[in-house]
Amino acid sequence: MFFRTGELQYYAKPDAPDPVFAKKVQELIGGQYGEMSVAMQYLFQGWSTRGNEKYKYLLMDTGTEELGHIEMLATMVARLLEGAPVHEQEKAASDPIVGAIMGGMNPQHAIVHGLGASPKDSNGVPWNAGYIVASGNLLADFRANVNAESQGRLQVARLYSMTDDKGVKDLFSFLLARDTMHQNQWLAAIKELEAKEGPIVPGTLPPEWEATEFSHTLYTNSESSKELKWINGPAPDGHEFKISKPEPFSVKPELKPAPPQSHNSLSEDNLK
Amino acid sequence: MFFRTGELQYYAKPDAPDPVFAKKVQELIGGQYGEMSVAMQYLFQGWSTRGNEKYKYLLMDTGTEELGHIEMLATMVARLLEGAPVHEQEKAASDPIVGAIMGGMNPQHAIVHGLGASPKDSNGVPWNAGYIVASGNLLADFRANVNAESQGRLQVARLYSMTDDKGVKDLFSFLLARDTMHQNQWLAAIKELEAKEGPIVPGTLPPEWEATEFSHTLYTNSESSKELKWINGPAPDGHEFKISKPEPFSVKPELKPAPPQSHNSLSEDNLK
Amino acid sequence: MFFRTGELQYYAKPDAPDPVFAKKVQELIGGQYGEMSVAMQYLFQGWSTRGNEKYKYLLMDTGTEELGHIEMLATMVARLLEGAPVHEQEKAASDPIVGAIMGGMNPQHAIVHGLGASPKDSNGVPWNAGYIVASGNLLADFRANVNAESQGRLQVARLYSMTDDKGVKDLFSFLLARDTMHQNQWLAAIKELEAKEGPIVPGTLPPEWEATEFSHTLYTNSESSKELKWINGPAPDGHEFKISKPEPFSVKPELKPAPPQSHNSLSEDNLK
Amino acid sequence: MFFRTGELQYYAKPDAPDPVFAKKVQELIGGQYGEMSVAMQYLFQGWSTRGNEKYKYLLMDTGTEELGHIEMLATMVARLLEGAPVHEQEKAASDPIVGAIMGGMNPQHAIVHGLGASPKDSNGVPWNAGYIVASGNLLADFRANVNAESQGRLQVARLYSMTDDKGVKDLFSFLLARDTMHQNQWLAAIKELEAKEGPIVPGTLPPEWEATEFSHTLYTNSESSKELKWINGPAPDGHEFKISKPEPFSVKPELKPAPPQSHNSLSEDNLK
Amino acid sequence: MFFRTGELQYYAKPDAPDPVFAKKVQELIGGQYGEMSVAMQYLFQGWSTRGNEKYKYLLMDTGTEELGHIEMLATMVARLLEGAPVHEQEKAASDPIVGAIMGGMNPQHAIVHGLGASPKDSNGVPWNAGYIVASGNLLADFRANVNAESQGRLQVARLYSMTDDKGVKDLFSFLLARDTMHQNQWLAAIKELEAKEGPIVPGTLPPEWEATEFSHTLYTNSESSKELKWINGPAPDGHEFKISKPEPFSVKPELKPAPPQSHNSLSEDNLK
Amino acid sequence: MFFRTGELQYYAKPDAPDPVFAKKVQELIGGQYGEMSVAMQYLFQGWSTRGNEKYKYLLMDTGTEELGHIEMLATMVARLLEGAPVHEQEKAASDPIVGAIMGGMNPQHAIVHGLGASPKDSNGVPWNAGYIVASGNLLADFRANVNAESQGRLQVARLYSMTDDKGVKDLFSFLLARDTMHQNQWLAAIKELEAKEGPIVPGTLPPEWEATEFSHTLYTNSESSKELKWINGPAPDGHEFKISKPEPFSVKPELKPAPPQSHNSLSEDNLK
Repeated sequence: MFFRTGELQYYAKPDAPDPVFAKKVQELIGGQYGEMSVAMQYLFQGWSTRGNEKYKYLLMDTGTEELGHIEMLATMVARLLEGAPVHEQEKAASDPIVGAIMGGMNPQHAIVHGLGASPKDSNGVPWNAGYIVASGNLLADFRANVNAESQGRLQVARLYSMTDDKGVKDLFSFLLARDTMHQNQWLAAIKELEAKEGPIVPGTLPPEWEATEFSHTLYTNSESSKELKWINGPAPDGHEFKISKPEPFSVKPELKPAPPQSHNSLSEDNLK
Repeated sequence: MFFRTGELQYYAKPDAPDPVFAKKVQELIGGQYGEMSVAMQYLFQGWSTRGNEKYKYLLMDTGTEELGHIEMLATMVARLLEGAPVHEQEKAASDPIVGAIMGGMNPQHAIVHGLGASPKDSNGVPWNAGYIVASGNLLADFRANVNAESQGRLQVARLYSMTDDKGVKDLFSFLLARDTMHQNQWLAAIKELEAKEGPIVPGTLPPEWEATEFSHTLYTNSESSKELKWINGPAPDGHEFKISKPEPFSVKPELKPAPPQSHNSLSEDNLK
Repeated sequence: MFFRTGELQYYAKPDAPDPVFAKKVQELIGGQYGEMSVAMQYLFQGWSTRGNEKYKYLLMDTGTEELGHIEMLATMVARLLEGAPVHEQEKAASDPIVGAIMGGMNPQHAIVHGLGASPKDSNGVPWNAGYIVASGNLLADFRANVNAESQGRLQVARLYSMTDDKGVKDLFSFLLARDTMHQNQWLAAIKELEAKEGPIVPGTLPPEWEATEFSHTLYTNSESSKELKWINGPAPDGHEFKISKPEPFSVKPELKPAPPQSHNSLSEDNLK
Repeated sequence: MFFRTGELQYYAKPDAPDPVFAKKVQELIGGQYGEMSVAMQYLFQGWSTRGNEKYKYLLMDTGTEELGHIEMLATMVARLLEGAPVHEQEKAASDPIVGAIMGGMNPQHAIVHGLGASPKDSNGVPWNAGYIVASGNLLADFRANVNAESQGRLQVARLYSMTDDKGVKDLFSFLLARDTMHQNQWLAAIKELEAKEGPIVPGTLPPEWEATEFSHTLYTNSESSKELKWINGPAPDGHEFKISKPEPFSVKPELKPAPPQSHNSLSEDNLK
Repeated sequence: MFFRTGELQYYAKPDAPDPVFAKKVQELIGGQYGEMSVAMQYLFQGWSTRGNEKYKYLLMDTGTEELGHIEMLATMVARLLEGAPVHEQEKAASDPIVGAIMGGMNPQHAIVHGLGASPKDSNGVPWNAGYIVASGNLLADFRANVNAESQGRLQVARLYSMTDDKGVKDLFSFLLARDTMHQNQWLAAIKELEAKEGPIVPGTLPPEWEATEFSHTLYTNSESSKELKWINGPAPDGHEFKISKPEPFSVKPELKPAPPQSHNSLSEDNLK
Repeated sequence: MFFRTGELQYYAKPDAPDPVFAKKVQELIGGQYGEMSVAMQYLFQGWSTRGNEKYKYLLMDTGTEELGHIEMLATMVARLLEGAPVHEQEKAASDPIVGAIMGGMNPQHAIVHGLGASPKDSNGVPWNAGYIVASGNLLADFRANVNAESQGRLQVARLYSMTDDKGVKDLFSFLLARDTMHQNQWLAAIKELEAKEGPIVPGTLPPEWEATEFSHTLYTNSESSKELKWINGPAPDGHEFKISKPEPFSVKPELKPAPPQSHNSLSEDNLK
């Protein structure tokens, strides 16, 4: 169950309005690896965790923190949109450069949201739950999580160079730090789980299910084999890597004709 | 540039038709972590790799192999749909159990695809490129890749228990093996890159950009702190983990009123 | 900023597993009017509210409660999936009716989520932020909110008749009650705002912007005019309704040919 | 059944081309609350209305009118794109300001549509039927409709200030008027239905289904309770509002371990 | 501008309810090639046609007819859902076969739409405007149209064999006929346009823009060359087909390193 | 099964960076008719072809070539993004025109992809498999294919006029040529299949399924009948076209009330 207070986790106050940058900040809210993704991903993973309380709590507490990150970024976007000449096209028309710059803002910030944040990415594509993963296998999911925090921190780092607003950079310095923490914690949890379950997910597979003769071979084209000779020696699961050229182990498949009710093509080849 | 031959990489021949299972196999083709995802993800990563030929080739060769995996699964689906009573509702009506079972198949297999595979998941949702990642940062992306192979192998393992068709299980034994290899190779590459760049992505961040006082603290609610005391000692990046209760570092934000052209609400509070 | 405890807001424990019903409950989590929608809608509206603290707090507190509703339903789904024969197709095959019934479950519950809830609707379509609205105009948005609670309560009511599990019905009785409260509160807020701003959104429009001669006329075809004579007398904004048959006020438009660089069709008509 | 004539319902002729504004007008065609949404929403509601002819006809006639609104806006967009320097980058390059301004147009207007309108919103996101509602409960749906007309009129009002083209404003003055009418008619129909069915949707719920002790309580955090004391006295359904702090009525849920076929995580906690 | 009457274009009355078949009929309403697609596709093409009145009118009149086809199918779905045991799970539980059969219906028909049609396909995926095309080039678009009518008629033909309800088949017999007409009319228009503009779209391309040495060569792998020797002699545009094995005309690309602000990977290869 | 080499099929090297044009080129990669669409469409059609080897091989070989087209365009985008001032907002701020121009680039190229290509269209909307078709009926699908190549070549032609970069135009000259070839080959295959199966898809329909009295009539409104008199004489299938005004062949439908468990509206009309 969830609670709230009105304060923000950290400062979210830009020095000046910048509607064009507001469009870019949307990536951190509603992008594939924005805060909506990590919040929902961790909460759904937590809600489905069976036993494993120590991991469930980590997921739930971190997911709850991320809700507050959406909040800070939504506040930041709302403030970047304050006081900007978004409706004053007539005046802008007298300064075509201002008009051209405003052409780079997200039109929905003005038309749809009344100068508020949008649950969409930096191109205006709505966030969707196809971005997130909750598989019930914690090692698999923690790998998803460390990836999400890596992509997220990378995006903040790139945006950091795209503004010189000190207020924005201050919030970004906090988000970079939290993404460092979250990468650290998922890496720590992965290390624990790999120690118990091995590096290959899922670690519970009966060995006879797997055609293990294909489990350590890299198939590579002839020209790339030189570049790929570093794939050798012991693999992370302890077996030896092999390199081979790709080859088919099966014949050319032939499908049977479809029944007449399918009204698929009926040409001579089909009747052979 | 790409080439092909008509043979399949491995066998893809079920013992018997099973249109209901064909619906489930679609998850491995067009699901979030199906073969369309890994093929496109590795190829887009490879096409954007700048320098780093040893990794670029690994991405390109693996992505090319995955195209052949879509092919095997599409062939498998086409064969699972052969010879099944999908159009014969009238006959099925005389055996309501057969009719009920057929109700579990994907209707588009019969109506839209003429007994062929669909580029969609097990619920009929079209594959979309929002599933994949290509960030230009190889360590981040290899983490995405090891996650994708973990989720993918997990799904094959689950489907393995949901059929007793030996032909299907034979193909799955091959896919399990290839997912083992691909987890191994991305883990090996991650190990190399972490050794050079450190565990926190991106490793190139100027330290003064980050509010490092927040980089190692876990914020946790009071009841979960006991369960989470395992988050302690050195973090993967070498610093010490801390635990704290969550608290706001900022005040309650107040946004300025919107300009009249926004036609946002105008009530007394707004005029205070 | 957000906090949590481990307890649920209300009971979420079914009497017995029912994977087929679990698929249906997904509508209340990730459907157009599921709990993800109301949670995110209220929070985004709250984050963008400028002044109007009394409404902002209402939005934030209600949005926070809705997060806990996702939690209860996710827990319910996870429990409905416990102990069901979802992987045992071989055994099911010996009882074709059980197999047929299991054909009605969501395959992703087993394949993708490991018997956990999914952030998708009852057909497996991912939730997306295109469902929600946050316009900055509170009267408009509260109308969206009372609609969302009406649709949501309606869906719970329909699902109530589709199960006889007492544990499920107990949770539904709580959700029905909360949807009653939320309809009540948005209706109360709408009444306040309409009293100040009038019934037509936005209430701040300069009258000369509007072609008011068209503001109260219903255009209706001849046969329906009898059924529609109830649209008469004073409209909610105080003016009189009129009924008229539909007619064009403008001529047939003629577009100019496209420039050659568009490579649109060039046929004789185009050259007239 | 539907018919047409070639004339437009109203004028749709701008004074001058403006490809950048054409991008913004797309929101009114293919946005969440654009004319595609209201047309399809009213028609689908009408087609599913069972009895209640007086409302069915209102839905059908209004939906039919909205089809003509898409037509006017599509014509307007086509004309805003006429005669603009969209392909003449080389010339634009000699005037970088013109080039910069053109950078704000929707590239698909030139590349994909040959200077015609697009069935997408102002960011180029395709319209989708997830935006609309047709529930079979008319009171619920009329609330959706009055919301749609409120959001739609708000967006036209905002766009009105973003251009000084008299031809565009003339069309907008008509759309503002029609949205006034449509808000009026849905409000009138809501008033009728609420008088019969009560304010809480659905009005047909057996009272014993609902945990009525939770039907009038606002849960609010301590700091916001002062701001929210206006939620008191009689609620719209006649009962008394109560305010309480949020509290869990249930215990912490514990899920059972998943079966081995799920290959979920197996760690020590899971075995407790 | 559009008008309507209450009558249907043709009969839409099934002999008996069949909620499972109602799910399948949805493909014809909201699927990729359902009636929503052809209605919207023809109207958007018509609204953007510049000159070429003879084609514009054909598009507009046909698009208007298709609106009435959505209407007939929506009515059919509503009637297929009448009188079926969709809410009576308790009774169904006493007859597990009925329960299993009902598991094959679309749950949203009962939960979301109150026994009405849905603007979605047979798997419940919402219709979206990404399905349609309106390019401004009529020859290109008429090819899209004849494809749409071909796919649509094919789907009706397949569904025809999946029911023995005479009322449903009666409506399908009408839809098959209209799809015959619409294929005929687009084929006739294509023939006219090809006679004027040639078979290759767009026909207005300056010849020096094209690397014509590659305009008639089929690249094929060695094993398929035998099967593909039928690609020979004069091509539709009058030139001669050639067959060749695929080969790269360019070298291996090398991308430059990204700038440091991108925080892409920095490993030794990158520094070579 | 698939193979690759490192060389590109053709040159993909622009003369100079142009991040704004890179955004536009995305339409050719991830747009509705971009190279991802044709690659996946041809491969899925090929994988499902039953018999008809001569067409299956054509599909597979062409689909394989298209994979290499994605590669060339992804390389082109990566190079158009090299060396551009995408992160240097501070410097750009001193030259507002440069800043305004950069506002026209796709922000995700910098933030998400680290100066690499994106699997999305020119507005940043992710490619999705709802764009493609694989029906099992080859004549239907080849019509889809010739449409796809027509739309694709049209888009390249339009982009050709939007740049003066000789390197970009060189790649476009190759793509134009290949689209000429592919239009030619699908037209040739269509001609063959129409000769065998007739022009109306599917050609295998029992004649008694169709209400042939409606198979050749154009329904047109009175004013357009003059413009549409060119629809006369023999239709492509050999029968005679007829023209008629549209009229309903059925009565006004009346739906039965919904059952009480649907909680649809209950008003007086419903009880008649």
